[in-house]
Amino acid sequence: MSDFRADGAAALEWAAQYLERVDELPVLAQVKPGELSAKLPLSPPEQGEPFASVLRDLDELIVPALTNWQHPRFFAYFAVTASEPGILAELIAATLNQVAILWRASPASTELEIRTVDWVRQLLGLPEGWHGHIEDTASTSTLAALIAARHITGRNVVVCSEHAHSSVEKAARMLGMELRKIETDDGLGMRMDGLELGDVAAVVATVGTTSFASVDPVRELAARAHEAGAWLHVDAAYAGSSWICEEERWSQDGVELADSLVINPHKWLMTPMDCSLLWTSRPDELRTAFSLTPEYLRTEDDAYALSDYGPALGRRFRSLKLWAVLRCYGREGLQQMLREHVRLANLFTEWVEADPDWELCAPQRFSLVVFRRNGSDEENEGIVDRANRSGEMFLSHTKLHGRYVLRLAIGNARTTEADVRRAWDVLNREARA
Amino acid sequence: MSDFRADGAAALEWAAQYLERVDELPVLAQVKPGELSAKLPLSPPEQGEPFASVLRDLDELIVPALTNWQHPRFFAYFAVTASEPGILAELIAATLNQVAILWRASPASTELEIRTVDWVRQLLGLPEGWHGHIEDTASTSTLAALIAARHITGRNVVVCSEHAHSSVEKAARMLGMELRKIETDDGLGMRMDGLELGDVAAVVATVGTTSFASVDPVRELAARAHEAGAWLHVDAAYAGSSWICEEERWSQDGVELADSLVINPHKWLMTPMDCSLLWTSRPDELRTAFSLTPEYLRTEDDAYALSDYGPALGRRFRSLKLWAVLRCYGREGLQQMLREHVRLANLFTEWVEADPDWELCAPQRFSLVVFRRNGSDEENEGIVDRANRSGEMFLSHTKLHGRYVLRLAIGNARTTEADVRRAWDVLNREARA
Repeated sequence: MSDFRADGAAALEWAAQYLERVDELPVLAQVKPGELSAKLPLSPPEQGEPFASVLRDLDELIVPALTNWQHPRFFAYFAVTASEPGILAELIAATLNQVAILWRASPASTELEIRTVDWVRQLLGLPEGWHGHIEDTASTSTLAALIAARHITGRNVVVCSEHAHSSVEKAARMLGMELRKIETDDGLGMRMDGLELGDVAAVVATVGTTSFASVDPVRELAARAHEAGAWLHVDAAYAGSSWICEEERWSQDGVELADSLVINPHKWLMTPMDCSLLWTSRPDELRTAFSLTPEYLRTEDDAYALSDYGPALGRRFRSLKLWAVLRCYGREGLQQMLREHVRLANLFTEWVEADPDWELCAPQRFSLVVFRRNGSDEENEGIVDRANRSGEMFLSHTKLHGRYVLRLAIGNARTTEADVRRAWDVLNREARA
Repeated sequence: MSDFRADGAAALEWAAQYLERVDELPVLAQVKPGELSAKLPLSPPEQGEPFASVLRDLDELIVPALTNWQHPRFFAYFAVTASEPGILAELIAATLNQVAILWRASPASTELEIRTVDWVRQLLGLPEGWHGHIEDTASTSTLAALIAARHITGRNVVVCSEHAHSSVEKAARMLGMELRKIETDDGLGMRMDGLELGDVAAVVATVGTTSFASVDPVRELAARAHEAGAWLHVDAAYAGSSWICEEERWSQDGVELADSLVINPHKWLMTPMDCSLLWTSRPDELRTAFSLTPEYLRTEDDAYALSDYGPALGRRFRSLKLWAVLRCYGREGLQQMLREHVRLANLFTEWVEADPDWELCAPQRFSLVVFRRNGSDEENEGIVDRANRSGEMFLSHTKLHGRYVLRLAIGNARTTEADVRRAWDVLNREARA
């Protein structure tokens, strides 16, 4: 343990210094494919080395190859935060090394998971009685929902919007299900006219699409899906966290009718990767799809086995970090953070709208801004490339009606108004370059 | 950061003390279902609290509800170890919070993962050229293999031994594939006579079954599978780690012919949950099953996108802990640990065989002993229940030819000869009770 204490103190100091100086590092890794590989030994070590060697190589090898997701000017994909309480909880979780295959294998992990996920349900204003648990990513949560939908309905078709996340297409592909992508209307929500759901196992509605943060008409989709005997899965992986603020609950309309819902606290609730929450209003049906234990063999313990609600048997103690985050921020702390991100996105939107050289391309929702510079796709692509290569900021792009558009996503706890202002300045500088 | 340093020091000290005193705690949690839930607040906190409150509640609420997987007398399921370098690497991984959806999103995570998994390939004497990556658990690795098998073969049947892990049945169920369980011979390996593979997508061979550590005839299964155009997946989740010792490579015979192979370093290579390695000798086919990027759109970066080889898009920086473990133990350190575990299992086997009141029920392989007390199933069940409830040790059971048998699995780094002796004493004491 003397080693553990000394090595641990060094690791902790390394972590503290990384977080202190992360804003001085390039946001996007400034390396070429294969550059780190070329520096790593081809063969494994024969003898053990001190942990200090690992820490040394972190600085020399790993840091230059990081894209710094903790950087305040990370605006790509969806920006995220691993908060300090969440990080330290991961240290404890690794120390305890729970493998929650069954209740008895870890009563703590099992029961804390059920309770903390229920805390989030309450914070977001979701219906009572829903059963929730933690998966690694929304890919897995959505996969689990589609498995349940096929199991219950005996049908093999999935319907989603053309702007649904790629994980829906991937899940359908993995399961050998047919995917029907539906066009969107002017508001970028799924079109309802002509929607035929007679042979459909699952409809996936998105609240906060990855490309535009657009919102499907959940209430109407729920009614139509249920009328047709289909399962309604809602993907609110990013935007669902915003429901902790009452003023964002307009986008929750109809979600209370969902059969399943995924929201990722590792996206916008300060929790380190990986923490994806999957709720269902039909827990018995979800369990039927995954449990190998026949009903007549169930014991009191089995009632709690969370491996019966998703693909994996072995489960990490992920709820510990969610518990630490909820405890250390509380509802107020989380609301404050999210409101600041939305405020910054609104501010950026104002700058875009006030400048005739730029154009807002989609209604601004939550903390995402979709915009472009007046000019060709190539010019816009050049702006993004140069801005990202500068290391000063990192943003990503998407396509809207065939046109290249920029996405600025705000979600890191370190991001200040000065960072957003700097991003705006960098983009304008690169636009003139 | 002052908070992070102070809270971190407290968390680290908590972790060190837990590891120091874990052998004084009960191995199996001595709580009833719902006991922890009753102590946890029903509602989430409104205001944030200091991290010290979380640490306090760890002691008061969480620890009594832990089944202590780090305990030296944890002999249930497969015993595991989260080693100190692995734990500290998880602290760093959470700090860096990489989300490796694509190469550019984390060159470090992507390239370190490829290299460290290749290091393990070399340590275990597996063929050159295999592509490996990390999944969370063997459940996911096997699911991925079956998805690839169905995708490539266009068939829908999975074949495995009656003693294959439940994750095979679960994966087939999730995918809507038909599962055929094959009886085993006297050596508990899959029977080959009458095996018809004409319509089979995948054969799953197990090296080291969960129940008995038995080994299927991999070489012959590979030949038969390939003759029939089926995919051969090898599940060596537990026993594969033993191949780091040359004397255990008898069980590797034929594995070089596999299409895919899963081995879990979080089982027997000192790595904290979760770290399951999935290799394939057919990387292009695996990628075809999962990638949504058409070949003609691939860029240099995409060559490295590990999300193209498995179900999830978002990927945690899991290789960091594997890297720390391999660096800090080296081949020699890991060999030493595994050999000691095998030696202790051999020793326990000798005690069982030398005692006319006990009986060895399956050939002793790797670090697992399968045995029973002479007497009824009820008597044996009583022994296990009382031993586990004593808190002094934790072992599990299985069924062999309809009879209740005990499993003693050795795999924790803290386990000494004295611990195994104590287990033997407890079992004999409870047998006489």
